[in-house]
Amino acid sequence: MTTKAMPSSQQRLLEAAARLTYQDGVNIGVDALCKAAGVSKRSMYKLFESKEKLLAASLEERASAYDESLLPAPDDDRPPRERILHVFERAEAQAGEPDFQGCRYLVAQIELKNPDHPASRVAHRVKANITDFFRAEAERGGARDPELLARQLILVFDGASARAGIKADTQGGLIAPTVATLLDAAGVR
Amino acid sequence: MTTKAMPSSQQRLLEAAARLTYQDGVNIGVDALCKAAGVSKRSMYKLFESKEKLLAASLEERASAYDESLLPAPDDDRPPRERILHVFERAEAQAGEPDFQGCRYLVAQIELKNPDHPASRVAHRVKANITDFFRAEAERGGARDPELLARQLILVFDGASARAGIKADTQGGLIAPTVATLLDAAGVR
Repeated sequence: MTTKAMPSSQQRLLEAAARLTYQDGVNIGVDALCKAAGVSKRSMYKLFESKEKLLAASLEERASAYDESLLPAPDDDRPPRERILHVFERAEAQAGEPDFQGCRYLVAQIELKNPDHPASRVAHRVKANITDFFRAEAERGGARDPELLARQLILVFDGASARAGIKADTQGGLIAPTVATLLDAAGVR
Repeated sequence: MTTKAMPSSQQRLLEAAARLTYQDGVNIGVDALCKAAGVSKRSMYKLFESKEKLLAASLEERASAYDESLLPAPDDDRPPRERILHVFERAEAQAGEPDFQGCRYLVAQIELKNPDHPASRVAHRVKANITDFFRAEAERGGARDPELLARQLILVFDGASARAGIKADTQGGLIAPTVATLLDAAGVR
């Protein structure tokens, strides 16, 4: 029984941590997380050692799905410009969802206020992976300064996500022309 | 005595709220705020009615200083392009300060997760004022689409601030060329 129940408690804790920290913020209490997961605090600490590690694990667990939801498929052979625009089309679609509050990996880092927190480290790595994608495509696309273009693209990604998350703006009619302007200026046609 | 002590308690609460919410997040407890301000909870509730209203008042109180720290002086008669670039030069300087964790008006809205929170409303208005400045300068500068340029500029402002705040990037070598590219594309020379 115990060995069968363990993965399920773990899964429920990961799901509750991801959902509640996104909805209510990273300061959500351990009691609330355990209650939502239907898991005792004793079990939570046995499985994850600390709330910090549970948060980190919950961000890690969603990283592959996050990448897949944004990046082109492995067999997508469109040119770099289109592959970059694909990411922003996906981001715009995600930002239009009713419960969108910004990219969860950006929001977690802003709220944690500590780049050395285990969850900040995971979030940083996940976003660095997106930046790496932009840099690689910028290089393949012949950008004059691939590093600058990659920094600009992730800046636009995060800025647009944050502003859509707080309902200050939408990404519609904004993100596509902005990215196109930056690609044009970098010489990625 | 009471009438003399009141403004001082109010001021200390506003200062503690601004400092601690920026440093630790908006979920900082009322006890911690009152302790830092050296004010009883009873006095806090008498002065501000609620923590929500205290947060809103603390953001409101800094709004003028925020505008002054970013916008050109009233007698600054440089052309629109330079006046816009001035804002980003100031933002870059502020982002380089050691305790910088992102624009406080962006961070507060992200953390509050509720556009109707009194403090979110204040923060939204303060940032809308910066966007209005961009739009007015874009119009004066003959931008093809002043509304689009204003949205782009505040997006870059917030994206760069958020990424510098989480130590994912600096604004150095990034914000100036990005803004210049957007101004060029909009025809603001």
